[in-house]
Amino acid sequence: MKVGILGATGAVGRQMLECLEERKIQIDELKLFASQKSEGRTFSYQNQMIACQIPTRQAFADLDFILGAVEDDLSRQYVELMDLQKTIYIDNSKAYRLEKNVPLVIPEINHEDLKHHQGIIANPNCSTIIAYMALYPLFQLAGIQAIQACTYQAVSGAGILGIQELNQEIMALQHGQSITPKVFSQQIAYNAIAQIGDFNNDGWTSEELKMLYEGRKIMHDDTLEVSCTCVRIPVYRSHSISLRVKVKNPVSLEDVKKTYLQQHPGLFYDELVSPLMTSNQDLVGVSRIRQDMFDPDVFYLWCCGDQIRKGAASNAVQILEYFLKKC
Amino acid sequence: MKVGILGATGAVGRQMLECLEERKIQIDELKLFASQKSEGRTFSYQNQMIACQIPTRQAFADLDFILGAVEDDLSRQYVELMDLQKTIYIDNSKAYRLEKNVPLVIPEINHEDLKHHQGIIANPNCSTIIAYMALYPLFQLAGIQAIQACTYQAVSGAGILGIQELNQEIMALQHGQSITPKVFSQQIAYNAIAQIGDFNNDGWTSEELKMLYEGRKIMHDDTLEVSCTCVRIPVYRSHSISLRVKVKNPVSLEDVKKTYLQQHPGLFYDELVSPLMTSNQDLVGVSRIRQDMFDPDVFYLWCCGDQIRKGAASNAVQILEYFLKKC
Repeated sequence: MKVGILGATGAVGRQMLECLEERKIQIDELKLFASQKSEGRTFSYQNQMIACQIPTRQAFADLDFILGAVEDDLSRQYVELMDLQKTIYIDNSKAYRLEKNVPLVIPEINHEDLKHHQGIIANPNCSTIIAYMALYPLFQLAGIQAIQACTYQAVSGAGILGIQELNQEIMALQHGQSITPKVFSQQIAYNAIAQIGDFNNDGWTSEELKMLYEGRKIMHDDTLEVSCTCVRIPVYRSHSISLRVKVKNPVSLEDVKKTYLQQHPGLFYDELVSPLMTSNQDLVGVSRIRQDMFDPDVFYLWCCGDQIRKGAASNAVQILEYFLKKC
Repeated sequence: MKVGILGATGAVGRQMLECLEERKIQIDELKLFASQKSEGRTFSYQNQMIACQIPTRQAFADLDFILGAVEDDLSRQYVELMDLQKTIYIDNSKAYRLEKNVPLVIPEINHEDLKHHQGIIANPNCSTIIAYMALYPLFQLAGIQAIQACTYQAVSGAGILGIQELNQEIMALQHGQSITPKVFSQQIAYNAIAQIGDFNNDGWTSEELKMLYEGRKIMHDDTLEVSCTCVRIPVYRSHSISLRVKVKNPVSLEDVKKTYLQQHPGLFYDELVSPLMTSNQDLVGVSRIRQDMFDPDVFYLWCCGDQIRKGAASNAVQILEYFLKKC
């Protein structure tokens, strides 16, 4: 089996490499792809050094799977170089997420959707993955009519440059130096920025709408009502999400809690999960389960998950694993 | 006029002193009160150095106003030393907030409540002040039936020790030293902690319930439905709050926006306010006004305000000013 990672030098690409190794996936050949400026840069995989190469039609030709960790425009550009009859492209960008024949998959929830595809599989947005992972037991228990989410998103969502900007700002402030934000629209150190992505005419950001449209596709429910406020905070790699959920069928707080205390793939319950506690591992943590004091069909919960891992790289590698088990 | 500040060495007490000076309030004598360990410590006020003294019945006796910036238990203890027939105690602790004959006041909203008191006036919780300041134009325009709030609260809410703990953790991490949180239950640097105060049996924290019970009292509406999730983030002094509001009377997004673009005392609208942008000043900032895509009676907004100033000290000093104008 031959696998490529597209965008291997980024935060998600590097994590994909780490996940492949951790999960001991049998690979005959691994190719790493990066832009021209990183050509020749090497990364270790199973005690071998692998040099990054530039993406070409020829280099892609013999690959069974390509894991994509590049921006939308590059993803669209490189797809043109792939033979999707032969190669399955598991894309972490948003380029194809809402396209009709592209499965959008969180394996724990809708791996069945992987049965029908035309060569491209899309990985959902990081906050979407973490929120729906946390909500899935409640979907199964009582059905969900509406979700309101407020996010507390890590700087890793903006890649390595986002992480570096937070670091640099902390250092600059300590030395009394001035700050010129580049990645984020304002200083992110000791701040919170209530804008991720661009605003539409109604004032919603592109990031906020992902939770709605991607969620509907994953849950196969076009009536699902989702409203979201996305906020960047000075945390490195785990996103936290405060969720308000209106269920379809009445259920007691006790039953909801019982459900979360059971084992669910990819999930754990703890009294108080935090982004730090859920960093550098693959599980999504759930806490703070409460029933509304006024509407018994409304529940609240708090969840955290590593944005680079389950929010991106691990989810993509899990999709790859699904295909390997089926082969 | 003679004024005392109780808890003068803390973050809120020091800010009260600064606010009195900034607002050029005519004071004949200012006394600063602190615990025994700070006795004799001096602070500057209008180019005079004032030494802290220990609170005693005698020292309180000739004061017209005492601004309180101590914890609940100390507040209850020191009230015993005050002659409330003569002295008005403006208390920032939560000790008396929900008591029947104690006005709980945000001057821009319910200064009328100051007309009837028995010597104690309570300053609301910081998040309550900031959220209701931001919501008041909407209350006036359309009435509010229900509020859901997710907070992004600064470490200053835990006083000077909270600010120091964030600083110390940032430094310790840079030097590879281990961290032992004291003020917060987990590391707050590069983290988010979804617990402020203690949990009740239903899983709500004491901080979360303040937004409900204090809000009802301030708005004179015991049917107001308020659900809140309170989260501490590594920001120094401004709280941010993501609000979802169900209005009573239908209103258009355009009209809501128009309302916020008008001048409101203590408030400003800006495309994207942040905690940093609203620190070290008295106004509450509002941004991100949106209408729900599914329920036209639901609106969203984002607000930020300095927790030590409008969330505590300035609000108390405004209450003092109200009495001075009436005299």
